[in-house]
Amino acid sequence: MIAVVQIAVVLFPRITVLDAIGPYEVLSRLPGAEVVFVAADKAEHRSDNGFLGLMADATFEEVTAPDVVVVPGGYGTRPLIGDPTVCGWLRAVHERTTYTTSVCTGSLLLASAGLLDGIDATTHWASLELLGQLGARPVTQRVVERGKILTAAGVSSGIDMALRLAALLADDLTAQAIQLQIEYDPQPPFDTGSLAKAGPEVADRLRELTAARR
Amino acid sequence: MIAVVQIAVVLFPRITVLDAIGPYEVLSRLPGAEVVFVAADKAEHRSDNGFLGLMADATFEEVTAPDVVVVPGGYGTRPLIGDPTVCGWLRAVHERTTYTTSVCTGSLLLASAGLLDGIDATTHWASLELLGQLGARPVTQRVVERGKILTAAGVSSGIDMALRLAALLADDLTAQAIQLQIEYDPQPPFDTGSLAKAGPEVADRLRELTAARR
Repeated sequence: MIAVVQIAVVLFPRITVLDAIGPYEVLSRLPGAEVVFVAADKAEHRSDNGFLGLMADATFEEVTAPDVVVVPGGYGTRPLIGDPTVCGWLRAVHERTTYTTSVCTGSLLLASAGLLDGIDATTHWASLELLGQLGARPVTQRVVERGKILTAAGVSSGIDMALRLAALLADDLTAQAIQLQIEYDPQPPFDTGSLAKAGPEVADRLRELTAARR
Repeated sequence: MIAVVQIAVVLFPRITVLDAIGPYEVLSRLPGAEVVFVAADKAEHRSDNGFLGLMADATFEEVTAPDVVVVPGGYGTRPLIGDPTVCGWLRAVHERTTYTTSVCTGSLLLASAGLLDGIDATTHWASLELLGQLGARPVTQRVVERGKILTAAGVSSGIDMALRLAALLADDLTAQAIQLQIEYDPQPPFDTGSLAKAGPEVADRLRELTAARR
């Protein structure tokens, strides 16, 4: 692992916060890691629900050669599909990154930037079709690794992706130590984290919840 | 579940961000939930590593009757042990909360406020002894539920705690739907999330990493 690794986490309005914070919490603990939250504006960016503001400390212009890029998801990705600032930046920095990554619907932006053309990738289960329409080959898998592109499924999957990335950037033992530090020994009270496991009743309840939110 | 549930997430300087964001991401999806990030100052609060600023939208004075309190951890908890503003607020609001909760070393502040005297509680594995010194009965368990007080172990355990809390505040089906929405189907690449599972070599590597960070 090189002396300093700059990890750029992309922010935008209506971000799903855990998409960004899962990888941030893992990767920031790598020796020599510097994490920078980057956006079109050096300003506060509000979450998808409006409940939280996250500060972007740098603009895209200021971060020209990150070693690792993490693109989180959220409803806010949709208006950015085809956005010249975000997609242009992703295309430019991807040429020199060590790893280009996404969590949840962040992969829609990688695809929109042309980085996933014909490449296996994943996203939140509810957006797999759209990912395919944008040129990627959608895969139902928690973490998809194809060369230097890693894409993760919905929201919480970014933690699993980042632990794999930590092992790639450093070594297994370092990644394992970080897992111990964040006490990632998952014991969810239910087993409904994927569509296949959850079944139709849970999926119906989720449709009710999201309809009520809109 | 009552019509609107106000969930107050406490912020302070040098917070471990995932401690706060795990529960936020789950609980914000409850029907009728309103999440407010509360702190001594309505200002930006930087993370333990300095890499991220989170906005507190309300002061403690402004949030007088939250239904649920979530106290995250981080190095920043240590200077707040015995702090009259934070501990005084926790004592005051706890009288009327439906649930008072913590993640990681957030329980040190609940203990410091006198809310855990003689009560089973947990914290990050590295802080269990200190939790005992502050009057609680430390328990090595991912989520500890004692009446209306829920404490979670280190960092990522807040997600598991919050799913349990979602079931308590709403019902199992709603909590299961939220788990599906955040695609919480953990598949960590390693099994080193607890001290018992990680073993001495991983713990040694972690000591090296944290020593290098200080």
